[in-house]
Amino acid sequence: MKHIVIIFLFISSVLNAQHLLPQPKELNLHEGKFKIANNIKVRVTRPSLKLNKYTERFIQRLEYSSGVYFQHHKIQDTISSYEIVINTNSTTENIHIETNESYAISVTSNKVIITAENNIGAYRALETLLQLITTSKNGPFFNNCSIVDEPRFKWRGLLIDVCRHWIPPHIIKRNIDAMAAVKMNVLHLHLTEDQGFRIESKKFPKLHELGNNGNYFTQEDIKGIIQYANDRGIRVVPEFDIPGHITSWLVGYPKLASANRNYEIATKYGVFKASLNPTEEYSYQFLDTLLTEMCQLFPDAYFHIGGDENNGSDWNQNKKIQKFMTKMELKNNHELQAYFNKRILPILIRNKKIMIGWDEIYDSNMPNSIAIQSWRGKESMIHAAKNGFPSLLSNGYYLDKVYKIEDYYENDPLPQGIDLTESQQKMILGGEATMWSEIVDQTTIESRIWPSALAIAERLWSSSENCDTKNFYVKVPFISNKLQEFGLTHINYQEALLGLISNNSSVQTWKPFIKALEPIRGYKRHDFLKKTLKYSTITPLNRIADACYVESFTARKFNTLIHKNCKKAGFCQYRNDIKYWLAKWAKSAENFQRISYKSTALSEAHELALKVQEICELAWRKVNSPSELTDRENQRAKKLISEIDTYQLDIRFAPIDGIKILFN
Amino acid sequence: MKHIVIIFLFISSVLNAQHLLPQPKELNLHEGKFKIANNIKVRVTRPSLKLNKYTERFIQRLEYSSGVYFQHHKIQDTISSYEIVINTNSTTENIHIETNESYAISVTSNKVIITAENNIGAYRALETLLQLITTSKNGPFFNNCSIVDEPRFKWRGLLIDVCRHWIPPHIIKRNIDAMAAVKMNVLHLHLTEDQGFRIESKKFPKLHELGNNGNYFTQEDIKGIIQYANDRGIRVVPEFDIPGHITSWLVGYPKLASANRNYEIATKYGVFKASLNPTEEYSYQFLDTLLTEMCQLFPDAYFHIGGDENNGSDWNQNKKIQKFMTKMELKNNHELQAYFNKRILPILIRNKKIMIGWDEIYDSNMPNSIAIQSWRGKESMIHAAKNGFPSLLSNGYYLDKVYKIEDYYENDPLPQGIDLTESQQKMILGGEATMWSEIVDQTTIESRIWPSALAIAERLWSSSENCDTKNFYVKVPFISNKLQEFGLTHINYQEALLGLISNNSSVQTWKPFIKALEPIRGYKRHDFLKKTLKYSTITPLNRIADACYVESFTARKFNTLIHKNCKKAGFCQYRNDIKYWLAKWAKSAENFQRISYKSTALSEAHELALKVQEICELAWRKVNSPSELTDRENQRAKKLISEIDTYQLDIRFAPIDGIKILFN
Repeated sequence: MKHIVIIFLFISSVLNAQHLLPQPKELNLHEGKFKIANNIKVRVTRPSLKLNKYTERFIQRLEYSSGVYFQHHKIQDTISSYEIVINTNSTTENIHIETNESYAISVTSNKVIITAENNIGAYRALETLLQLITTSKNGPFFNNCSIVDEPRFKWRGLLIDVCRHWIPPHIIKRNIDAMAAVKMNVLHLHLTEDQGFRIESKKFPKLHELGNNGNYFTQEDIKGIIQYANDRGIRVVPEFDIPGHITSWLVGYPKLASANRNYEIATKYGVFKASLNPTEEYSYQFLDTLLTEMCQLFPDAYFHIGGDENNGSDWNQNKKIQKFMTKMELKNNHELQAYFNKRILPILIRNKKIMIGWDEIYDSNMPNSIAIQSWRGKESMIHAAKNGFPSLLSNGYYLDKVYKIEDYYENDPLPQGIDLTESQQKMILGGEATMWSEIVDQTTIESRIWPSALAIAERLWSSSENCDTKNFYVKVPFISNKLQEFGLTHINYQEALLGLISNNSSVQTWKPFIKALEPIRGYKRHDFLKKTLKYSTITPLNRIADACYVESFTARKFNTLIHKNCKKAGFCQYRNDIKYWLAKWAKSAENFQRISYKSTALSEAHELALKVQEICELAWRKVNSPSELTDRENQRAKKLISEIDTYQLDIRFAPIDGIKILFN
Repeated sequence: MKHIVIIFLFISSVLNAQHLLPQPKELNLHEGKFKIANNIKVRVTRPSLKLNKYTERFIQRLEYSSGVYFQHHKIQDTISSYEIVINTNSTTENIHIETNESYAISVTSNKVIITAENNIGAYRALETLLQLITTSKNGPFFNNCSIVDEPRFKWRGLLIDVCRHWIPPHIIKRNIDAMAAVKMNVLHLHLTEDQGFRIESKKFPKLHELGNNGNYFTQEDIKGIIQYANDRGIRVVPEFDIPGHITSWLVGYPKLASANRNYEIATKYGVFKASLNPTEEYSYQFLDTLLTEMCQLFPDAYFHIGGDENNGSDWNQNKKIQKFMTKMELKNNHELQAYFNKRILPILIRNKKIMIGWDEIYDSNMPNSIAIQSWRGKESMIHAAKNGFPSLLSNGYYLDKVYKIEDYYENDPLPQGIDLTESQQKMILGGEATMWSEIVDQTTIESRIWPSALAIAERLWSSSENCDTKNFYVKVPFISNKLQEFGLTHINYQEALLGLISNNSSVQTWKPFIKALEPIRGYKRHDFLKKTLKYSTITPLNRIADACYVESFTARKFNTLIHKNCKKAGFCQYRNDIKYWLAKWAKSAENFQRISYKSTALSEAHELALKVQEICELAWRKVNSPSELTDRENQRAKKLISEIDTYQLDIRFAPIDGIKILFN
């Protein structure tokens, strides 16, 4: 029990620090505090429907988070001696890319003053204030301070792919809440894919009637989502991915295709042959009508046309297309796609939209009014910027790759020494976290978005000198926990999923073992699933890898502890702490073995659990008394480490990195 | 660690039993098993859109629950040597109160045969089959068996009040899934209240535009819910509560009122004065139009008009109403309400609806075609039945009263010895669990519905001789866990809520203390909140009482253990098990004290935690060595027990009932 207390004190000691995420530009703490008492009042100096709505929600959230029952829930219009005041100059009905999001906060003992150019800046300030709530034995308070803040990049996005797996409006909305809480400002909805056309078209109803498994956004749903986002200062950018990734369109409208084939909604994943026919006027008439309909539905200035991974093989096979290319002197498929994009551009311009697309739409013959979203590498972003194209970074921000969170965090769109002039750097609008949904469903998607996207939120808002990986990791558990306020399930889905796959088998006794596991990173898990031939839209996503968090914070702490405190061959300081975790994992891996037959998913990890138990027991003895282990035992340990390290499964026992050091 | 193993083995040993809930009428287990292998096929002998849809979902759920990746996801039409077959005679598009829900299942080593009169019976059978999944080291299987099953009552309902707190469609839908899983067949939507009019009216739009805080079901939402329920063999009965409970209606349509007053949506709770004016023709014209609109929206034959708690004081104060009563020879408000109901009845009859309402609509002058839902006591149900009125039991099924689950379970609508003839007994249609939402919100409501409603589900389906409280409690954790399949949060909301109110403070170290707490029962918590003057629609529901499960199963086990194994004054068998829990609670109550300042909600329980720690430590010593305690210590223990037992808070430390025995 001693160790629990130690850990507990460690956590407590950091609790009273300010956990602001993203880190503000300037933060100065002062003596004294503003008490969050029940007679608190909130005043808005320039009321507007939008600001009042946000402020009213703020009052409720402050009450909920502080645990104090307030006397006043309404916004005041007269000055009070003890109040939170929100000063703005103007109201912005619709946030756009140039909207000023800056704000300042001054907390003194009887007044909190928020100053912002407009309501959007005020929203950002109110979120900061909610993160400032601190608790003490004398009740909750804000520490006196002054904050001046503004974003580094103006485009801080999250892409959600609602096509490979359907993600319904209520889940989109609570993620919008979470985005607002950490000052992200663009929701990019990936609406069409080979696996599903997920939005109602009144012009071409067979798109949504035949192009999905019954799940799609109605136009009312979309209006609701846009309103919800707008109320929180978040833009919604729709993506209609053309000319590739369009199998689902062709089920209802095969005439659009470049090849005569029997089209069915794709259930497998990958890059498909299906492509729009860029040589038929029908295609452009169709797209003109459809995109005009959609441009009217989505008020944002940007309209995403995808453009990625157009396989080209159907173009190669189509003689008419080949003839057309010869006639038009188009040398290759890239040029044909550029031709296609140039035909699409006037449609968007007529609808007052700015075209944006993936790397592949970049073409030196396109006007540099279009924007490029870089997914294949930072080079394409740099190349675009050098040629005067605005661009966004998504490469390195792929949430479906389940990278270590620090890898997202340390991916700066404009790192020191980047080969771009100052004016070229201004072409970099920001970036977007991308949540592709091949191997996430409604149950698991939030655990892949959060807390990983916190890294990208801070990176894109805070100046690079304010980004510190170590400090970031201290803040993450607290901010991630707070996001549960919106009903996000990124933390507690684990318990439910483990309960389900184990038939309620005493999860607590083996959960520490699971909590030390991580899914394998990059697209290795995709490869793993492909090998099992189970890599489709109907594959149940209820394996241990699905139940694992993206990063094991206990393993991270353990590995750091060892790294810092252990000399070679197991001579360590803080031995009790290290032994505590080793004993815990050994025991829980043992417990796991007893219930591993409860489902296929669990039984696959049976052998891993055996090895983990053995290596943890050996490591425990090594730390306890380094010279006690026989040569044979040391050899055995090394063999186990190597086996665990290369274990052929889609999960990895993360503390093995620390344990390895003990036997070096 | 020894104790964990003991508990673990205990759980394992019951895992392989059949946990069927509700208990089928006849269940005979045979030798052998039907293996759930990856080449399993499912065949429907009489395909229909509805049955196929349910069956396809069944295949997905069987795959998800068994953890086996299937080769065949489609319904087969040819006989196979290894298959699940679904035989039905007919398809029922819309379940109605007389729909035959019976079914039979025969499981042999290579065939599962389901036989049912219609698709609804087949749905019930498929849910039973999913509960039959058993796991072993050789993979999942169904035990060979034969089951014959049918419901005891034809109306097995759940009422959800979406007015006091708004409950959105996606939460309603996942609760419909859970209802179907345990064979409940009526969703009663309480749609209008003083605190909110929660459904769109195209005829009188000010009802939904002005009558709520912005949250209501559109008619599209309602159609979606009805379709969803219908696809699962569940009827949807709407309630429009008149003539009382109508404050929210009057905001937009004050002309309906019996008193001239400035009407605002109620935010406090209780019985209000507001009442429709039953003497004005305007009221009937309005209701004719509105109810006709709603009768067309809801296809079910029953239409609920509420009728409860009509305060009457506005009628008493209105001279015109008083004159009307004299003229019509109506002796009291009950007779006036009966007059009102008689004017409403033809509207419903014209719309081919059967009127149903609460106790208060019973009147010997009403035709006994109307149905009575009994909430005030079983007597009104008996009285109605004796007079030939069909009736439903809800008294004793109030989920918001957070009774012990056994209290719901043991509330039989027709207990042995009830004073009703056989034909009178047939007038009892069944019952309904009622989830009133004064002190539950979206976050907590499911924890009040489940697992409590499981008790009512089994009671209303299974014959009384098949209902056994002890056996029921064995099944509950497994079935409750399984319901998480639908995304229900009734279990894992606790972790999220505790994380939020403690600012992520090492919840695991003090959770055992919370898990031993229960909310105070009946309406005591309402009284408690009234006393604090915080009893309204905007009161944050994030206290410890909200985070507690309705019943602490650990406390129940502990109390039973002591009851069975302890003689007076602490002389016990199974001493280690008892001491294990006492030590756990003492330690976690101590840990709790350290973080209790994190929020008001937690700090209120600080003193309780102190007392719990002390009594658990004393009890541990008492069990360890009964004669060791001094007289003074024994006296101190008794004092603590009495203080904890009568602690002035909205939570209760449930193991105190067992601890009490140790010091007797």
